[in-house]
Amino acid sequence: MPELVHTGVMKKLINSPQEVVREALEGMEAAHGDRLRINYEPPFIARKDAPVKGKVALVSGGGSGHEPMHGGYVGKGMLDAACPGQVFTSPTPDQMFEASKASTGGAGVVHIVKNYTGDIMNFELAAEMLEGDGIKVETVLTDDDVAVENSLYTAGRRGVGLTVLMEKLLGAAAEQHASLADIKKLGDVIRGTGRSMGMALTPCTVPHAGKPSFELPDDEIELGIGIHGEPGRRRVKFASADAITEMLMEPIISDLPFKKGDDVVLFVNGMGGTPLIELYIIYRKAAQIAKQHGLKIVRNLVGPYITSLEMAGTSITLLKMNDQLCKLWDAPVDTPALRWG
Amino acid sequence: MPELVHTGVMKKLINSPQEVVREALEGMEAAHGDRLRINYEPPFIARKDAPVKGKVALVSGGGSGHEPMHGGYVGKGMLDAACPGQVFTSPTPDQMFEASKASTGGAGVVHIVKNYTGDIMNFELAAEMLEGDGIKVETVLTDDDVAVENSLYTAGRRGVGLTVLMEKLLGAAAEQHASLADIKKLGDVIRGTGRSMGMALTPCTVPHAGKPSFELPDDEIELGIGIHGEPGRRRVKFASADAITEMLMEPIISDLPFKKGDDVVLFVNGMGGTPLIELYIIYRKAAQIAKQHGLKIVRNLVGPYITSLEMAGTSITLLKMNDQLCKLWDAPVDTPALRWG
Repeated sequence: MPELVHTGVMKKLINSPQEVVREALEGMEAAHGDRLRINYEPPFIARKDAPVKGKVALVSGGGSGHEPMHGGYVGKGMLDAACPGQVFTSPTPDQMFEASKASTGGAGVVHIVKNYTGDIMNFELAAEMLEGDGIKVETVLTDDDVAVENSLYTAGRRGVGLTVLMEKLLGAAAEQHASLADIKKLGDVIRGTGRSMGMALTPCTVPHAGKPSFELPDDEIELGIGIHGEPGRRRVKFASADAITEMLMEPIISDLPFKKGDDVVLFVNGMGGTPLIELYIIYRKAAQIAKQHGLKIVRNLVGPYITSLEMAGTSITLLKMNDQLCKLWDAPVDTPALRWG
Repeated sequence: MPELVHTGVMKKLINSPQEVVREALEGMEAAHGDRLRINYEPPFIARKDAPVKGKVALVSGGGSGHEPMHGGYVGKGMLDAACPGQVFTSPTPDQMFEASKASTGGAGVVHIVKNYTGDIMNFELAAEMLEGDGIKVETVLTDDDVAVENSLYTAGRRGVGLTVLMEKLLGAAAEQHASLADIKKLGDVIRGTGRSMGMALTPCTVPHAGKPSFELPDDEIELGIGIHGEPGRRRVKFASADAITEMLMEPIISDLPFKKGDDVVLFVNGMGGTPLIELYIIYRKAAQIAKQHGLKIVRNLVGPYITSLEMAGTSITLLKMNDQLCKLWDAPVDTPALRWG
């Protein structure tokens, strides 16, 4: 019988804060080793069949704690590889370099990077190293969070929910052997036409910190929260699901602006600790608001797809769609967390 | 702007405790109305293409709060209809009757019922009403929870995680037009060869109760918890993920008993508030333990598939597999929560 440990108020299903990421990778290998290859030094998750010859390789990564993003999106029709950092900490350039090297099928690599200072810097270094090896790299950013212009870890807007849609759509394009230039161009279009905003009811606890990332009174919510618990726009008194949905949808719709007649995908995301039944209550109102604005929801996604550990809360993402994007959305995908077709 | 409401310490994304189930159904209709039909009086979720002629109809249901079960499992290759009760409350016989009537394609109905007194009683009444209308009904029970023999809402063992696997496997058989008798027989085999056990780190709060379903000290966990927060086997001091996994796996394996050489599906379930990264840490150890016992994991499932609102915790299910069951497992499924093939 292993030793019983008591870690105080931090109640988590872990063995040691230092081993969380490695042991979770071992679990992924045990569960999905038929389709994924796990590298431990440095850590990355790759398609078992990588490199796929002649195909542009899609590589992403970021701090752990947002599962299933990114490791859960590695597979046919989505990412070729993902680099997990420690919880809420950027992966290192050597992870990105090795993951890209292992994935490249000779047609170049696209890095999908969420706009956080550490991620940007490290992916830039990795891209330089890859270019030095003669591998062409394009970078696609996500900075879809309309809540704040700059943040704790960000110059400019933060990359959040749009990243999931970006990985699905570019993944489908890459699977159909779109060129490096075309994928880059498509990624920039998606970046330009997707917007998100989130909120939290509760904080979360990073294992190696051992205490909640922030304090939130019982009667308040944080509007515009970041996926690392970074401060949002403002704290407001607790409100109904419908009121909260309006507070998220209005800034999203007015930012772009989305306009009457637009086709959109509506993505209602759970932050981790929010039950699915509540996400459907949010979806209900978000769909009503979209309709009031004349937006046509042509595709949707509801569930915990980009999380912040056990944080309770939600985020909403809208992305303009067209026939090409709908076809890419519907294309087969076979990853641990997203699977259809 | 809707009125802001403050519901005290119960921080949930809802509008009113009384409207949770109805509004979540409206959200499901908005999101999945292309594939599902939502009936409101009485409430049930049905396949849009139901009834499928000549096919046995699979109908399940139970209290809400366990999403995605059961409504998220309605669709091709799984359930024909699901009846959501109020949170943690059995649906009524008229829901089950109407859902079954709407789904039956002339080859009879199978009710998949978790072993809770209210569910059993109401599904029995519904079955009698259906038989009165000349519709043949068979009932398949799940009572896979090895934690306790009798419980707050149960005579005999509780039905938990095995229900998800049951719905997938019988759903595939029904889709292939297996007969009523064969599906009943297969269901009884699955019932007899699947076992589960769960644990909780935290309680959850039922909306209309407004306060946590039980109290759990900071340094304790509840071993053998039920999906409604019913008491389990015992409370123990907080322990490492590996130790907790042993405490769950040993009673499961020794109960049946599973034996060396058995093929199994290993299902690590999240109770709602536990991050996926922690579930993979549990899976890692559970797979090691299975291997030590000579069990061969031929299929697996990792994620929040039968939840208890926002409860933090996990449950593990093992089911003996064979070639027939593997084929049924791999068969296409197209539901909001489980989709492949």
